[in-house]
Amino acid sequence: MKSDLSNLYQPRHIVIVGFSLNEEKEPIKFLNVLLKLGFRGEISLLGRERGTYAGCEVYADASDLPGDIDLAFSMLSAQKTLEVLPAVAARGVSVAVVFTSGFAEMGADGDQLQKAVVEACNQNGMRLIGPNCPGYFYLPNKINLTGIQDIPAGPVGMISQSGNVGITLWDQASMLDIGFSAFVGVGNQADVPIHDHIEFLGNDENTKVIALYLEGLPAGQGARFLSVCREVSKKKPIVALKGGRTSGGMRAAQSHTAAMSSASKVYSALFEDCGVIEVHHLEHLLPICEVLYRCPPMKGNRVAIVGSGGGHSTVATDEIEISGLSVPEFNQELQAEFAKRLPAYAPKRNPVDMTGGFTRDPSLFAQMTTLVLEHDKSFDGFINYGLYGLWHGGEVHPSSPYTYASAAPLLGSIQAAHQLPIIFYTPYAYQNDVSFTALRQAGIPCYANLDIAALGLSSLHKRHKFLSCPAVSYSSSAPAAVGEMLTPSDMLTEASAIEYLTSDGVRFPKFEVCLTPAEAAQAAARIGFPIVLKAILPGVLHKSDLGGVVTGITTCDATKQAAEAMALQIASAIGAARHTGYLVCEDVGKHRELFVGVRTDSLLGSVGLIGFGGVYAEAVDDTSVCIMPATPERVTESLMRLRSASMWGEFRGDSSVSAAGISELLNKLNGSLLRNPAVSAIECNPVMSVGSELIAVDAAIEFFQGSAK
Amino acid sequence: MKSDLSNLYQPRHIVIVGFSLNEEKEPIKFLNVLLKLGFRGEISLLGRERGTYAGCEVYADASDLPGDIDLAFSMLSAQKTLEVLPAVAARGVSVAVVFTSGFAEMGADGDQLQKAVVEACNQNGMRLIGPNCPGYFYLPNKINLTGIQDIPAGPVGMISQSGNVGITLWDQASMLDIGFSAFVGVGNQADVPIHDHIEFLGNDENTKVIALYLEGLPAGQGARFLSVCREVSKKKPIVALKGGRTSGGMRAAQSHTAAMSSASKVYSALFEDCGVIEVHHLEHLLPICEVLYRCPPMKGNRVAIVGSGGGHSTVATDEIEISGLSVPEFNQELQAEFAKRLPAYAPKRNPVDMTGGFTRDPSLFAQMTTLVLEHDKSFDGFINYGLYGLWHGGEVHPSSPYTYASAAPLLGSIQAAHQLPIIFYTPYAYQNDVSFTALRQAGIPCYANLDIAALGLSSLHKRHKFLSCPAVSYSSSAPAAVGEMLTPSDMLTEASAIEYLTSDGVRFPKFEVCLTPAEAAQAAARIGFPIVLKAILPGVLHKSDLGGVVTGITTCDATKQAAEAMALQIASAIGAARHTGYLVCEDVGKHRELFVGVRTDSLLGSVGLIGFGGVYAEAVDDTSVCIMPATPERVTESLMRLRSASMWGEFRGDSSVSAAGISELLNKLNGSLLRNPAVSAIECNPVMSVGSELIAVDAAIEFFQGSAK
Repeated sequence: MKSDLSNLYQPRHIVIVGFSLNEEKEPIKFLNVLLKLGFRGEISLLGRERGTYAGCEVYADASDLPGDIDLAFSMLSAQKTLEVLPAVAARGVSVAVVFTSGFAEMGADGDQLQKAVVEACNQNGMRLIGPNCPGYFYLPNKINLTGIQDIPAGPVGMISQSGNVGITLWDQASMLDIGFSAFVGVGNQADVPIHDHIEFLGNDENTKVIALYLEGLPAGQGARFLSVCREVSKKKPIVALKGGRTSGGMRAAQSHTAAMSSASKVYSALFEDCGVIEVHHLEHLLPICEVLYRCPPMKGNRVAIVGSGGGHSTVATDEIEISGLSVPEFNQELQAEFAKRLPAYAPKRNPVDMTGGFTRDPSLFAQMTTLVLEHDKSFDGFINYGLYGLWHGGEVHPSSPYTYASAAPLLGSIQAAHQLPIIFYTPYAYQNDVSFTALRQAGIPCYANLDIAALGLSSLHKRHKFLSCPAVSYSSSAPAAVGEMLTPSDMLTEASAIEYLTSDGVRFPKFEVCLTPAEAAQAAARIGFPIVLKAILPGVLHKSDLGGVVTGITTCDATKQAAEAMALQIASAIGAARHTGYLVCEDVGKHRELFVGVRTDSLLGSVGLIGFGGVYAEAVDDTSVCIMPATPERVTESLMRLRSASMWGEFRGDSSVSAAGISELLNKLNGSLLRNPAVSAIECNPVMSVGSELIAVDAAIEFFQGSAK
Repeated sequence: MKSDLSNLYQPRHIVIVGFSLNEEKEPIKFLNVLLKLGFRGEISLLGRERGTYAGCEVYADASDLPGDIDLAFSMLSAQKTLEVLPAVAARGVSVAVVFTSGFAEMGADGDQLQKAVVEACNQNGMRLIGPNCPGYFYLPNKINLTGIQDIPAGPVGMISQSGNVGITLWDQASMLDIGFSAFVGVGNQADVPIHDHIEFLGNDENTKVIALYLEGLPAGQGARFLSVCREVSKKKPIVALKGGRTSGGMRAAQSHTAAMSSASKVYSALFEDCGVIEVHHLEHLLPICEVLYRCPPMKGNRVAIVGSGGGHSTVATDEIEISGLSVPEFNQELQAEFAKRLPAYAPKRNPVDMTGGFTRDPSLFAQMTTLVLEHDKSFDGFINYGLYGLWHGGEVHPSSPYTYASAAPLLGSIQAAHQLPIIFYTPYAYQNDVSFTALRQAGIPCYANLDIAALGLSSLHKRHKFLSCPAVSYSSSAPAAVGEMLTPSDMLTEASAIEYLTSDGVRFPKFEVCLTPAEAAQAAARIGFPIVLKAILPGVLHKSDLGGVVTGITTCDATKQAAEAMALQIASAIGAARHTGYLVCEDVGKHRELFVGVRTDSLLGSVGLIGFGGVYAEAVDDTSVCIMPATPERVTESLMRLRSASMWGEFRGDSSVSAAGISELLNKLNGSLLRNPAVSAIECNPVMSVGSELIAVDAAIEFFQGSAK
């Protein structure tokens, strides 16, 4: 379906639906804010009281509305919405913003009503924003339907599932000398999803960076979100905060916007895959937008810290290194240059500390920064820090050639000329002062939080990595030919899971299924020693805990003895009835053990999972999501997100775990998952990394109703 | 040595040393700030120009100083300090604050000079604060020697290794309607260490909470810091930020305050052990002090969220749960009570969302909070949130019985009556307004950062846990009798490490050292099958990577064959010369594998290390520090700090790993470490948890110069 939102952002004629002349009520307040801003198009009103208000005609019936209206802003009650809005649509209005709440966020009844409204409006050619939308504005076109005036204008386009989050950022903006082009509250996204707005703002020349507050995407929309964001991210940065990352947060988000929450790890993988910079605190969303708007991307991870004062230099260094960047020591040449200009007691190794000299000349920051660029060319970005701007009331020494404000453009020029970012820290940065406005106008963001300064640089480095990575090419191979379909009853044992996945091309060790200890001994001889003997125990999750796994068996006799001992042990633990046989497997030896699996996902259809494997996988709890289809690049990104990342590279003489091998395995598992609608997940654990090969040693297939192994 | 700092904090007569009448220089600026504050004691000055300034006598020679001076504040150059300060001490001045830098933070020469100054002054009965001290104040006594005026007075006592960090907090304080009793910059701590100040402020009735900015403690002072903080923490909260937590940060801290940095994990364990609340960002230090000052501790981890607005409720829930607390659903009775009072569309499950009603009556926050307390008594603390205070310019509906300010004491009364904490979030909280001052005066902290609100509650919960845990009792058993001393040459093999530790009482599997495959087979028969065969390879770290470990051997023949095969494999990999024999060990089977070790530490003498063990221990990199001597409680805390914490409790039918067993093992290892000055570390990895026992399976002893296994 076409999603041209130009009638939303650039309407020539608006109708406010559910208008009332009652000054106590919302509609008239919204209208007054719109009028005060100076909207230049036409405004009509639809309400019970005929007449005019501020020159706008009030119509009592939708059928009387003029035929050239582009946009309806509906403040009707939930019930009235279904009655009236389709009639407005019938007058040719192609987009409506439904402000009213009381729909899907209220439960099943509200969801029914919401579906009915969308269907009726769509049938009449109208697309819906919301319902439960907190309003929207597009300041270049003088439209503001949020009921709140004096919102600072600027380059940030914001798309949000919360009005209050918007209000918080509009308030924060003036502290950072920044502002907004657009805001849209998407509410329940019953019709137009969040990424349609991203696409529109991606092409909007008044929007230089996009801020997202997202509680959840509509089911099945992950792939479309991904492709839209990937395209838009190439043109301008997108920064996102995901609300509902914890179980409690998901419950809160559900009653708030009816968001169907996928796990937060899925969103994190999705964001990373399409270049969206994720932040983790609300207070970081706008500053990181600001940094990405003002500064060039950071090409490497080496940060120089140039400033004044000891404690701040230590804390700044900690914050930078904790953010994943590095603060390496300056070369000797540069340290010698500092020694010519700074007192003996001034630290010069990185950070360099001008020990208060800036009050005699604030341009020292630019001078020292230039010195770094001239004498140690290995740095990719800068933190400048100090009691800049308001120390002792903002006065500099009478002999100083610069004020704080007049020195600011020097830093801006350095950033622009060298195309590497400079971020300023000063504890006064959020006080309203010309010193800081001058820095920001020169392109230098400044913060009173060292963690935000550090996060700013690491975000600029992420931005560079996204922009410089080659376009991902997805294997276009069709899903594997449809094999036998699985139903839950087919799949009660590990053995049958392995047989099924083997037929799909997943590599397992050689194995045979046997009924008796004697058969097991014969099978062992055929497979070759050493072997692993496993009990077949339908429905038992951790058979090793019951003595149901013995490794390293080297003879036929030992196989038979182990099988007999195993039977006795299991019988005494859980009774003999559940022990239906033996699996005799080739022993592939000790290797690094991965967890590799796929599961269905409401957002993306299915996702891959990669993690630390083996018996302790659950306790170590170190898995990350891989967006499907898996490519070696996506697998590598996924492995890098693991805490145990270092374990999967070269390790004690073994080569790196094969990203190509994992991606191939994931895609095979995914093919099996997708062609079996009853299957909810397929997991291989452990998967052994043997040289450049990956060998699944155990597998489980889970079904939507109950699960079996 | 006695550390009575009353002459520092409550002097009757001060001398400023290194005074000059030059208005451009620091001393006169410092004096003017002191005079302006209204110090009521006497002030003398020691400088080159005789005369008086503002009624204070300037002396040219130390020997002319009056005999009743309590405190000297020295602004002499580093060189002059050694010349003049001992002479001032000779006049009976018992404490000096040395403002000057240019000492140990400058390297070896400065360190020499510093030692000379301390020695000369101590000999004359004078204790030193600093050098490289940024100044101090004690406002109840009208003393301010920081050169900065108008510092807000209040209950926070601050001890800092940075002046700039102090300035940052003094500036932040007015935003939070809080202030300071004392500040002392400890600089290089050449003489009086940080904990002497903690002890003094712990007994100071004007100080209700202590803020620490700490880059490092002097070597060997960890135990004294621990015991002081443990006592003070019982009386009042201590909050600390550790600067220099990364390698770059340590370098920065070293040039800044000559801090001898121990690893940040050691500090974190130390803080937790003595009840010091650690924060990780500079901007959190003062707010967490404020929370701990204003609010009662939080007895459990269940948080109720009461407020207005959707997005904030979701983000608040996320922040609370990410902080380690929980936001469980309200019971049905309470939800029904909310339903009587709030619109149908208002979420009521926790968070409860009054959807804007507070602008018609701000006391709704208190009403809804009371409703929770009456109908669901399972909660331990509250977040209240909303656009409180300045929404639409701070106006409430004309019919409202309360303003924002007049409603604030209602919340304060609830907090006081129920002794459970309430923290407010509103995006306007840092704007100067009577609404927020009223909340704070009522005891309710309010923040414009949801992460700080969440951190506040989790800090209050930590405070409760510290106050309610019984006093730790340390085993007073003397270190084990001194056995044979080790020298590096003694200890080149695992076998001799195991033999040595066995003699110290560490439990290992049965083992024998053998020279040939035939001897190994005989030893195996004596030990009993199954056995593990290991190669003895002096100096080889990971012998399993060379085929030097075979497990699960069940016969004499298999032992001999394995030993022969092992010899060939090693010979082809690294040559036969390094293979000096075999270790034949009892095979204790598969169990959970821990890393347990001790190492020397500059701060504490030695520390314990507990972590995820086995072959992948390094890659998983999950270890935590245990303060010595180990107690079961300390071990439990240490295990809880691991990411893999869940793995060490009951796990798949096995009982919890024995904390008592780990503490006993750590104390035995520590005894071995302490009586061998050449040994830098002793590590057992893996240590198997077998039932309630701990069996070390492998061990290594490291020496200070080079290491051997």
